[in-house]
Amino acid sequence: MEYRRIKDQDKSEAAVIDDLESRPGMCAVLPKSEGKIGDKSKWKLKTVVTLALTFLTSSQAILIVWSKRAGKYDYSVTTANFLVEALKCALSLAALTRLWRTDGVTEDNRLSTTFDEVSVYPIPAALYLVKNLLQYYIFAYVDAPGYQILKNLNIISTGVLYRIILKRKLSEIQWAAFILLCAGCTTAQLNPSSDHVLQTPFQGWIMAIVMALLSGFAGVYTEAIIKKRPSRNINVQNFWLYVFGMAFNAVAILVQDFDAVMNKGFFHGYSLITVLMIVNHALSGIAVSMVMKYADNIVKVYSTSVAMLLTAVVSVFLFNFHLSLAFFLGSTVVSVSVYMHSIGKLQR
Amino acid sequence: MEYRRIKDQDKSEAAVIDDLESRPGMCAVLPKSEGKIGDKSKWKLKTVVTLALTFLTSSQAILIVWSKRAGKYDYSVTTANFLVEALKCALSLAALTRLWRTDGVTEDNRLSTTFDEVSVYPIPAALYLVKNLLQYYIFAYVDAPGYQILKNLNIISTGVLYRIILKRKLSEIQWAAFILLCAGCTTAQLNPSSDHVLQTPFQGWIMAIVMALLSGFAGVYTEAIIKKRPSRNINVQNFWLYVFGMAFNAVAILVQDFDAVMNKGFFHGYSLITVLMIVNHALSGIAVSMVMKYADNIVKVYSTSVAMLLTAVVSVFLFNFHLSLAFFLGSTVVSVSVYMHSIGKLQR
Repeated sequence: MEYRRIKDQDKSEAAVIDDLESRPGMCAVLPKSEGKIGDKSKWKLKTVVTLALTFLTSSQAILIVWSKRAGKYDYSVTTANFLVEALKCALSLAALTRLWRTDGVTEDNRLSTTFDEVSVYPIPAALYLVKNLLQYYIFAYVDAPGYQILKNLNIISTGVLYRIILKRKLSEIQWAAFILLCAGCTTAQLNPSSDHVLQTPFQGWIMAIVMALLSGFAGVYTEAIIKKRPSRNINVQNFWLYVFGMAFNAVAILVQDFDAVMNKGFFHGYSLITVLMIVNHALSGIAVSMVMKYADNIVKVYSTSVAMLLTAVVSVFLFNFHLSLAFFLGSTVVSVSVYMHSIGKLQR
Repeated sequence: MEYRRIKDQDKSEAAVIDDLESRPGMCAVLPKSEGKIGDKSKWKLKTVVTLALTFLTSSQAILIVWSKRAGKYDYSVTTANFLVEALKCALSLAALTRLWRTDGVTEDNRLSTTFDEVSVYPIPAALYLVKNLLQYYIFAYVDAPGYQILKNLNIISTGVLYRIILKRKLSEIQWAAFILLCAGCTTAQLNPSSDHVLQTPFQGWIMAIVMALLSGFAGVYTEAIIKKRPSRNINVQNFWLYVFGMAFNAVAILVQDFDAVMNKGFFHGYSLITVLMIVNHALSGIAVSMVMKYADNIVKVYSTSVAMLLTAVVSVFLFNFHLSLAFFLGSTVVSVSVYMHSIGKLQR
């Protein structure tokens, strides 16, 4: 739904060109004037994809809580991940087919590609795979709630890598806002046992930092790939990203769940919630790509952080959750951070 | 010591005149040029009094922890408060005597005063008395750690009353910084039982808000009194403030501790720590007046907030305190707030 709406506005891609001005080695393929006309529709696109990502991320977390309440996962997580990639691939193809029918096949929306274009697409998928493997080992040093706290290091690593790799500047106020975002999200997640995190052994800290860097790097690298060819249709870019996602997840099925799939079948343990989660993950994944194309990693981080707070508020009504004082304080800090980020942009 | 140093720079009082420009009904008594010459020494004064207040406030909290460890208070708090006011009065007189000997008695440093000047001086002392009385009743609704959390409302009330009564503007970034200061201080003080605060009954909230307003109003009103006559010597202003402080505290002794003082004597239960605390409170009180004269209530709030964090850090070494994750997060937010306040000033 959101996805369709966004697709129809593909022609305004030119609008993202001015985002790329400061980066070397990127050429503007469309005349400047078109970029200016697109300013308003660019803003619209940014807003739509950001809201979609926020909505999908928070409903994702709610589905997870729901599935946990309904009982333990008894399906293979690797098969579900594979299906998420496959569904994203299918949706990208469907969008492309529709586009080919209306606009015909052009240089920008054709599926065929060069080795030069496609060679970088496996990298984010490979980084995520390494990160997911590390995830199993970090639990030797930190418990699950502690890991949730440490995951907020992603915010800082994304900011730093965004600066280094994409060479995009954040104003001083925006940096301050980013530190606040990290502190605010962590505060909102505090619980009486959170102090254990401070006793995390040195190896645990190193792994948490490495994982944050891998995750931040994968995100920033995806943005770099997608923005490198601003006029290329996002659905083609997504198609290639997701093809490699499927390939890497197929390997994960073979390595981790081969026996389970062989004995109990590919779809063993699937339920309505599982299907909803797969659909949700697929749509969120597409929303993330859209945010990378039309906005950036910083917007993505803000969007998912706000989604985390929204989830908690919605859970109060759905699951009778109680909000802690720490949650209110963290939310206040995150709100001020969002405000400062927008102010910092104006004053840059 | 700090006090002496500050006193010697009294002549640069003219420098505060530009602080008053935006307020109606205040006349600049010295020519503009002198105000400009004083800019650097004004900045110096501000820094010295702010650091003195921060140092004294944090050592004050440490003395309180020390005295609690040493045993319960067994002296009358009202007599100690009276002695604090008396000591401040004596120190102001001593400073004045020295000044009279070097500069002679002038219009600005003479002790004699008009009813018009002195009539407003009892108001802050009266406000503090009402607030201290309310303090006994609020504990029917909140426990002591909860009260510590609610006291952070003072930060917001001071900002709001500073804006309304002194008609001084804070920039948007400074307001954001002020909200962060309140959230950060509260976060730093969080402990596993802090969530009880959210169950505070309606009457408790109302009392907490009224107390915050009284405290904020007393602070802002003191600043208004002291700044109303920029050329008037601070020691004379302090003398009159403290005389009324003594009077109100004498009433408090009669009302609350008359029997104890009559039976056990004025100084019953005094120890070395008690004496140190009285000296410390007296010096802090003078530092607060100095901050009101040469800086403002906003600086005072930042100074005491930073002192709160310093106290916790020092307590780690002195009393083997453990710092919580919440403390680190709160300190981060407070640090960003201090940074933003200074940035906000430049951009105003």
